[in-house]
Amino acid sequence: MILLITGGGKGKTTSAIGQAIRALGRGRQVFFAQFIKSDGYPSGEDKMLREMPGVTFLKGGKGFVGILGDKLPFEEHRAAALDTLSQAREASASGKYGLIVLDEANVAVSLKLISEDELVDFADKLPAECDLVLTGRGATPRLIERADIVTLCEEVKHPYQQDVKAKKGIEY
Amino acid sequence: MILLITGGGKGKTTSAIGQAIRALGRGRQVFFAQFIKSDGYPSGEDKMLREMPGVTFLKGGKGFVGILGDKLPFEEHRAAALDTLSQAREASASGKYGLIVLDEANVAVSLKLISEDELVDFADKLPAECDLVLTGRGATPRLIERADIVTLCEEVKHPYQQDVKAKKGIEY
Repeated sequence: MILLITGGGKGKTTSAIGQAIRALGRGRQVFFAQFIKSDGYPSGEDKMLREMPGVTFLKGGKGFVGILGDKLPFEEHRAAALDTLSQAREASASGKYGLIVLDEANVAVSLKLISEDELVDFADKLPAECDLVLTGRGATPRLIERADIVTLCEEVKHPYQQDVKAKKGIEY
Repeated sequence: MILLITGGGKGKTTSAIGQAIRALGRGRQVFFAQFIKSDGYPSGEDKMLREMPGVTFLKGGKGFVGILGDKLPFEEHRAAALDTLSQAREASASGKYGLIVLDEANVAVSLKLISEDELVDFADKLPAECDLVLTGRGATPRLIERADIVTLCEEVKHPYQQDVKAKKGIEY
């Protein structure tokens, strides 16, 4: 089963984390990979996911791409994303995991770090007993079509609209 | 800060669980209470939340209200909800928690298990250093107004639409 969580509102990554906890509670192993996000931007969940029994956590990105002072060549972002996907493929093929999360996968596709074809192919090769969660704003119509459950997280109200700084423990 | 997650789509409770994990990763204690949901309907996250250091988990409901074969007098549902809210009030007043989650609070208000006034009052009395997450479909305009961040989880696609049975580890 493929669960796709998209839209501009808050709650996509946190929902994926919640899915991971739910799967763990059902005795499954979880492979939780993140595109774009890098260790340079620590988030509250990192330590938890890293230390939680049953979770393999891969923060596989190199940070924001082409914005907010990013000076890294695009090819380095792309290489990191391809490596992340490659490790997720190995995790999938191992048959060990009951849930694979590809956090920010939709953004990785939008930014052309990975291709839509690669992601669909990943979904096609997923073992029957393994579920997949894809997150990130801007999911393509083809990925929406491919997914079984699709939620759009719409931003109704957000303090960013009022120039409030992101809050530690809530936003990251 | 009050985070409200509403709408008919999947991902509200899982997002609240993710917020709890994020808060724990920032060294905060979490009080995670659920209205309506009862031990008669175990979910994958229950065991995890119960056993996780730093989390107080209260599954305070009595199950579905007035639907799906519910035969419990409304007053018993209401008493359970009031007790849940009362325990959440104590948790808030203790100053021990950095995050309080009231899962399905919006539904509890819709069903008149608790009043909107009681929930707004709860929010008003929250210690400054404690964040609050409210979930459930059908948030009232007043609660949306009261919250700092509001996400609407919209259902784009769901197998229920095609009569597929809820999947263990994904839906619950």
